[in-house]
Amino acid sequence: MRPQGQEEFDGHTAYDNVLTGELDSGPGSGPSPDTDSQGQGVPKDPLLFIQLNELLGWPQVLEWRETGRWVLFEEKLEVGGGRWSAPHVPTLALPSLQKLRSLLAEGLVLLDCPAQSLLELVEQVTRVESLSPELRGQLQSLLLQRPQHLIRTTGTRPCRGSAHPRESSHDEEAPLKEQRQNALRHKLPPGAEAGAVLAGELGFLAQPLGAFVRLRDPVVLGSLTEVPLPSRFFCLLLGPPTLGRSYHEMGRAMAVLLSDPQFQWSVRRASNLHDLLAALDAFLEEVTVLPPGRWDPTSRIPPPKCLPSPHKRRSRTPLPREGPGLRTGTATRSTRPARSCSGQAVGGRLFGGLVQDVRRKASWYPSDFLDALHPQCFSAVLYIYLATITNAITFGGLLGEATDGAQGVLESFLGTAVAGAAFCLMAGQPLTILSSTGPVLVFERLLFNFSRDYSLDYLPFRLWVGIWVATFCLVLVATEASVLVRYFTRFTEEGFCALISLIFIYDAVGKMLSLTRAYPIQRPGSPAYGCFCQYPDPGGNESQWTRTKPEDRDGILSMDLIADHRSLQDLGLVNASLLPPPECVRRGGHPRGPSCHTVPDIALFSLLLFLTSFLFAMALKHVKTSRFFPSVVRKVLSDFSSVLAILLGCGLDAFLGLATPKLMVPREFKPTLPGRDWLVSSFGTNPWWLSVAAALPALLLSILIFMDQQITAVILNRAEYRLRKGAGFHLDFFCVALLMLLTSALGLPWYVSATVISLAHMDSLRRESRACAPGEPPSFLGIREQRLTGLVVFILTGISIFLAPILKFIPMPVLYGIFLYMGVAAISSIQFTKRVQLLLMPAKHQPDLLLLRHVRLSRVHLFTAIQLACLGLLWIVKSTPAAIIFPIMLLGLVGVRKALEWVFSPQELLWLDELMPEKERSTPEKGLEPECSFSGSESEESELMYQPKAPEINISVN
Amino acid sequence: MRPQGQEEFDGHTAYDNVLTGELDSGPGSGPSPDTDSQGQGVPKDPLLFIQLNELLGWPQVLEWRETGRWVLFEEKLEVGGGRWSAPHVPTLALPSLQKLRSLLAEGLVLLDCPAQSLLELVEQVTRVESLSPELRGQLQSLLLQRPQHLIRTTGTRPCRGSAHPRESSHDEEAPLKEQRQNALRHKLPPGAEAGAVLAGELGFLAQPLGAFVRLRDPVVLGSLTEVPLPSRFFCLLLGPPTLGRSYHEMGRAMAVLLSDPQFQWSVRRASNLHDLLAALDAFLEEVTVLPPGRWDPTSRIPPPKCLPSPHKRRSRTPLPREGPGLRTGTATRSTRPARSCSGQAVGGRLFGGLVQDVRRKASWYPSDFLDALHPQCFSAVLYIYLATITNAITFGGLLGEATDGAQGVLESFLGTAVAGAAFCLMAGQPLTILSSTGPVLVFERLLFNFSRDYSLDYLPFRLWVGIWVATFCLVLVATEASVLVRYFTRFTEEGFCALISLIFIYDAVGKMLSLTRAYPIQRPGSPAYGCFCQYPDPGGNESQWTRTKPEDRDGILSMDLIADHRSLQDLGLVNASLLPPPECVRRGGHPRGPSCHTVPDIALFSLLLFLTSFLFAMALKHVKTSRFFPSVVRKVLSDFSSVLAILLGCGLDAFLGLATPKLMVPREFKPTLPGRDWLVSSFGTNPWWLSVAAALPALLLSILIFMDQQITAVILNRAEYRLRKGAGFHLDFFCVALLMLLTSALGLPWYVSATVISLAHMDSLRRESRACAPGEPPSFLGIREQRLTGLVVFILTGISIFLAPILKFIPMPVLYGIFLYMGVAAISSIQFTKRVQLLLMPAKHQPDLLLLRHVRLSRVHLFTAIQLACLGLLWIVKSTPAAIIFPIMLLGLVGVRKALEWVFSPQELLWLDELMPEKERSTPEKGLEPECSFSGSESEESELMYQPKAPEINISVN
Repeated sequence: MRPQGQEEFDGHTAYDNVLTGELDSGPGSGPSPDTDSQGQGVPKDPLLFIQLNELLGWPQVLEWRETGRWVLFEEKLEVGGGRWSAPHVPTLALPSLQKLRSLLAEGLVLLDCPAQSLLELVEQVTRVESLSPELRGQLQSLLLQRPQHLIRTTGTRPCRGSAHPRESSHDEEAPLKEQRQNALRHKLPPGAEAGAVLAGELGFLAQPLGAFVRLRDPVVLGSLTEVPLPSRFFCLLLGPPTLGRSYHEMGRAMAVLLSDPQFQWSVRRASNLHDLLAALDAFLEEVTVLPPGRWDPTSRIPPPKCLPSPHKRRSRTPLPREGPGLRTGTATRSTRPARSCSGQAVGGRLFGGLVQDVRRKASWYPSDFLDALHPQCFSAVLYIYLATITNAITFGGLLGEATDGAQGVLESFLGTAVAGAAFCLMAGQPLTILSSTGPVLVFERLLFNFSRDYSLDYLPFRLWVGIWVATFCLVLVATEASVLVRYFTRFTEEGFCALISLIFIYDAVGKMLSLTRAYPIQRPGSPAYGCFCQYPDPGGNESQWTRTKPEDRDGILSMDLIADHRSLQDLGLVNASLLPPPECVRRGGHPRGPSCHTVPDIALFSLLLFLTSFLFAMALKHVKTSRFFPSVVRKVLSDFSSVLAILLGCGLDAFLGLATPKLMVPREFKPTLPGRDWLVSSFGTNPWWLSVAAALPALLLSILIFMDQQITAVILNRAEYRLRKGAGFHLDFFCVALLMLLTSALGLPWYVSATVISLAHMDSLRRESRACAPGEPPSFLGIREQRLTGLVVFILTGISIFLAPILKFIPMPVLYGIFLYMGVAAISSIQFTKRVQLLLMPAKHQPDLLLLRHVRLSRVHLFTAIQLACLGLLWIVKSTPAAIIFPIMLLGLVGVRKALEWVFSPQELLWLDELMPEKERSTPEKGLEPECSFSGSESEESELMYQPKAPEINISVN
Repeated sequence: MRPQGQEEFDGHTAYDNVLTGELDSGPGSGPSPDTDSQGQGVPKDPLLFIQLNELLGWPQVLEWRETGRWVLFEEKLEVGGGRWSAPHVPTLALPSLQKLRSLLAEGLVLLDCPAQSLLELVEQVTRVESLSPELRGQLQSLLLQRPQHLIRTTGTRPCRGSAHPRESSHDEEAPLKEQRQNALRHKLPPGAEAGAVLAGELGFLAQPLGAFVRLRDPVVLGSLTEVPLPSRFFCLLLGPPTLGRSYHEMGRAMAVLLSDPQFQWSVRRASNLHDLLAALDAFLEEVTVLPPGRWDPTSRIPPPKCLPSPHKRRSRTPLPREGPGLRTGTATRSTRPARSCSGQAVGGRLFGGLVQDVRRKASWYPSDFLDALHPQCFSAVLYIYLATITNAITFGGLLGEATDGAQGVLESFLGTAVAGAAFCLMAGQPLTILSSTGPVLVFERLLFNFSRDYSLDYLPFRLWVGIWVATFCLVLVATEASVLVRYFTRFTEEGFCALISLIFIYDAVGKMLSLTRAYPIQRPGSPAYGCFCQYPDPGGNESQWTRTKPEDRDGILSMDLIADHRSLQDLGLVNASLLPPPECVRRGGHPRGPSCHTVPDIALFSLLLFLTSFLFAMALKHVKTSRFFPSVVRKVLSDFSSVLAILLGCGLDAFLGLATPKLMVPREFKPTLPGRDWLVSSFGTNPWWLSVAAALPALLLSILIFMDQQITAVILNRAEYRLRKGAGFHLDFFCVALLMLLTSALGLPWYVSATVISLAHMDSLRRESRACAPGEPPSFLGIREQRLTGLVVFILTGISIFLAPILKFIPMPVLYGIFLYMGVAAISSIQFTKRVQLLLMPAKHQPDLLLLRHVRLSRVHLFTAIQLACLGLLWIVKSTPAAIIFPIMLLGLVGVRKALEWVFSPQELLWLDELMPEKERSTPEKGLEPECSFSGSESEESELMYQPKAPEINISVN
């Protein structure tokens, strides 16, 4: 176990990635880092921090001031604003580069200078013939003068330090202290070096003075640089003030050159002036040029999302002309199921894959607990625990409704805890969080409706379905069916996700509307008006009242027989009061009147709660990308959006205190269905042959569970997450099968892996470099793979069963709102939705998707239309009595996808979907994958881990 | 009157603006267009359309294909996608420019070539020594081959043509027809010329072949270019296929060069090869260079919002070093009140300014009607009419509530029609739309509360206030007080706007909450339960019932005396039914019971309506910037957001049919206040001295009206709207004074100019070029200044009085929602709000505002805090009984602003606010104005006319 903070420097940020990537050979021209590039073990060049000190104030008071700094991107000193600008892509003027070149060519170049201090260095640099001894003395004292830095110190004195960055004073000791406190220092990895560029106009010089120094051993040059790093490079560009701004621009050009990895590589190894100029020329060969009339040079370009791949950069010129529509590039989409699964499959022996999985994971087992000893795991546990109980409450509540109480919140908590903990202990991928997922919930509802329609005893029937499912699943494990997942392309996944999301949305709205029917709104003209309490005659018994015919009772009203007021009831002459119905019943009376059973305001208030929780959850989700509040606050608000939305809903409900329908929670620890034992009886009132017939729905459910579990597993084990301990597809599925048996026997909900919450789990455990240059996103190092966080989460969930009584304060409309939010969030995250939106956009306003660059719009629309048609068909099937067969229809999507190969070309399918295994073999493996898009915010193929909350495939709505 | 469409070419789009601007002298170096630049009358160079035809298919089937085109920006053919890319800033590689230079230097350069057809041109170009006659023939036939264009034809066949752009066939006639149908052609102004660049690899050539031709007389070169424009330039870049992609890149470089205005200017006047190369070198001097490691050359940069100013571009290098925080640049903020007003003021004579206004405007009077004869005016009338009646309804409804019916919707309609029409006929700026504005509404409410508190007869009191206000205003006109507006800086304007917006928001929410008190929500435990109808005894009279003591009546209930149920009422033994209260009353009964007066569901439904109309209006407003639907649809949805939100609210209300509170509308054409005549009596029940005392509130109102009217007038007459007929500050204010008298006498609402709706009026009448290059926003040519549209709008408003009965279906909560929307929209639009938001943002995440580049964050926060404090003080004053003096407090903001000069430096105030007149004189006029920001979407200083819906100062909430 390493101390916290150490590993932040494990991988040296994207900067180093670029550099390392650069070392990966490639047909480069000119001086290039090819020679010592073969092994990854070669020590990498250290990171370079470059600072531009500018000489200001000529001819009055001369002073050096840091006006720019570079690590990856440029930061400019906003003199008026007293702050550093946002990091941006540096832009240069071509003449300044050319002037710099000629100044260097004529000036002093010292490579491997042995100077040990600033004084020595200054002496070496000023030993130029053109300077008189007097001038040399003046220049030396000027160069030794302490520059002004704008230093933002770390949070030692947060109240002052953060809001008011101090300008370093001219005091002797203070700057060094400030240098050490500089917040920037903590962003640079150990071993980083500095480069100082000094530029400016100096009136007493007769001709320009240029000097470039590479120190043999980097040394800290006093307070020359704002961070006390050992300096490797030192560059001096001074001259008479005739060329105006050009020394500033030349200084910037030098700094930008030094910040270029390729130039830096070359200049670290340069042995003479010629090498230096060749490196500059190589830089010029590769620059991008913007025409002057179309681009304002003063505008600042924000850092691009992905830096150019060094491989691509090198091969830019000599690369042969690309074929239309096909480009080379680094594939970020990575591992298709095909590869990752076939890697697991050991053809031939039964259970061969399972055995191999067990063997491999067993070797990691001890480390799965030791690796969890890190503070980050505590916050991960808290976050995932809250997400898990939110899920348990929502799905439990909905299951309770869908199955008329055969399942409920208590079962949901218990099942989640038992199944989740068991899975974490046994599974191949212990980062997976089991949960009730959308597809299984939908199927369970259909199964319940089926058993109700045929008057079956549900839980025993369900037990047999579970037994059969487990059997089928074990057969699938034995035959290593997991390799079939390779045929589930994005087309299948999106169909799956879209259908389930739509069912969620439809159900949420439907349940909300059914509430308004249960609590009708009283309209002015409606006859339902009035209600009072009638008591039995003190002498006569109660039955006499009900036996009286309406006509007779109308006669009791002495006058005003209102014929058209049909639902008018008789009034007890002597035995009545205006008590509310519940009070009336308690006192032994009978509420009489049409409006006794209508509760006002409930329908509209439920609607308000529903909309509030939905909109609030949506809004909180988007807080993450807002500019307000520190990142930590935004992350918490966004991560806990569902929890906060539920809390808000409960608060509103408690504030008004209306009798909205609430979550049903049993008062003690016993099954929600009254009268049943925890262990489900094997037959109940069902006939014996039903246990055989259950095989049919079980087959359907097996298909569903297979699709749901395996697609999620593939997503979780993607290459970009850099999992070291490997996957366990067969072992995972085996665990799911066993848990199926357990949960069916106990009458608990069924569980499979849940995509979104598992991704959130992985995201909360990601290790990333905190040492990143300004403007650079932190680089991803890997994930803390262990079993403990999941285990603790589920143990806490188990303990939370005793919190259940609190849950009865949660209004159902709030849960429906969260349900709607889940459906909307899931359907928004798939590419299919983006393509449907394209249908509504005029071509001119469409985003610049890579997809659209390479496939004709009409073909894109055709593909979308086919997907829509499939979805329509699925929806129709789902709405018929044959709804229960929808898993087969989902599987049918694979066939439709296969048939699409007759309609679309492989290239089109590559952009619109992915290739099926056979095709994949017949087309070149590389060079077909879409490249990383750089154009603005519409990055299609961004790495999943950077958007963990909106994964490309959100297959399990949970 | 010119035919529609003609004037679209009046000003030749921003392209020409750049060019013309470029001709505006400036200390340029090298060949520059200075010589013939002095007059604007010099014929400008025509626009150039450049097309790159690439030779593809070597060595198989050779064909020319258009792969790129340029007007201002680059459009690339997406071969796979079969579409043109979005216009983007072209990026080049430096080597391709250098290779192009050497190819041109060695190749053939024909300037003023007399060729009359493609054939002649090809013959001239191929007359090169290095080619054998056989090769020459081959090359000629190749060059004469028809290129393939991707042409998107205009909407003649919209069903097919728009969705499926056709590739031109090899048929003889078709391409020319397609050329003529090309939609792009209509975007180019008449007189535009073409430049064709032909580039590619040709195997049979032994050495590269470069040719640059400038035709003496531009001729249409058959189907060479996709639009049948006469070609001026022709460039051929062919060579053996050894250099790979470089001919394509060289072709692009040539095209980008030609699309550069400076290069184009030079090359049109070049007399030899030397001039051509010099122009290329001058281009290279000015390019912006992006370092290779930090920018991917394949990424596409969207067109910047503003192109670099040519003046700035020229003077980039020789410009002296700028002082810190101060930059030169073209000022887009333009005309401060000071200048525009002092231009109007004629010191000395009483009414001098008014007389001059009348004199100047009189000369334009006939044209004010003739200029309106344009179809655009019809749509403007429709739009402004709907906006006006929406305003009349909203403000009328709110005034009716605020004044207990002393004013109402009918008065609002009548007053708007009369005052608006009169103003349009007489005013100096007839584009102004008069309306009830927020400040006046607030004041009227305060005035009403005051007169109610002291039991005054409101309308006669108000009449005297009006008379005094008119008097004061006339004094202000006579003394030309309008010039004082120059002391209202942004600080004052923002304080004004923020206070009024907050009052709107507060009132809207407050009125909504008062509705929930008027229609309380029935909680489960509340005693208010039950209601029934009691009829008088058939024999006994009704009074006997009421005289019965409660105790006695309780005794009538034979049992169950419920003591704690306090509000329980007795039950009539024989005479009762469960009729709803209104029905009960109609039948002569009495509703009895605690819940007879509570109407369920109304409060929550009102809340729903309120939120729905607010959120819907907000959402519709943002539709304008969405990608969905064609621009026309988006514009309509966005422009009519309030109307649509009101309609939606009414629809929802009608659907549920609940008895929500509705807008009060009199049934016939008579004042809302019962019993009053249209003409307000001069004293009523008030004492005579009140007519003198009314001068005091009148003074306050005069201040308010002066501020409201004049600030709006300044905004409307800003220089960027390019009004030709001049302003009329004094005349406008004079009209307002007269109308004050009229409306007070008739008891109608008071009117002043309304900023937002007037800006919308101007926006709907803007003339702009439709001929704009791809990627270029249409350029603004001016506004149709006339009196007719306003007049027609108000005549229609007058007629709409007869539509009033329909208005009684509008629920009040919907109007409150619109009211809230107005307040939120107004407060969001001011810079103050942005600065308040900065308080909540960590420095790292703050947008790159120019303001923040030049002023320290702590100073910005201090300024914001002072504004907040002033606002807080104003709010406190408004909440005390002294509320009515708030106009004086508003005026006090000018003093506070003056005092700020002790706290902030002039530079800081320039960025945070504006300079006051004295300061303005003492600091250099130029070089201080903030420049146009190019950095991304945070353009602070964008021209107002491009964001007419969110003007910088939204002073009148209306």
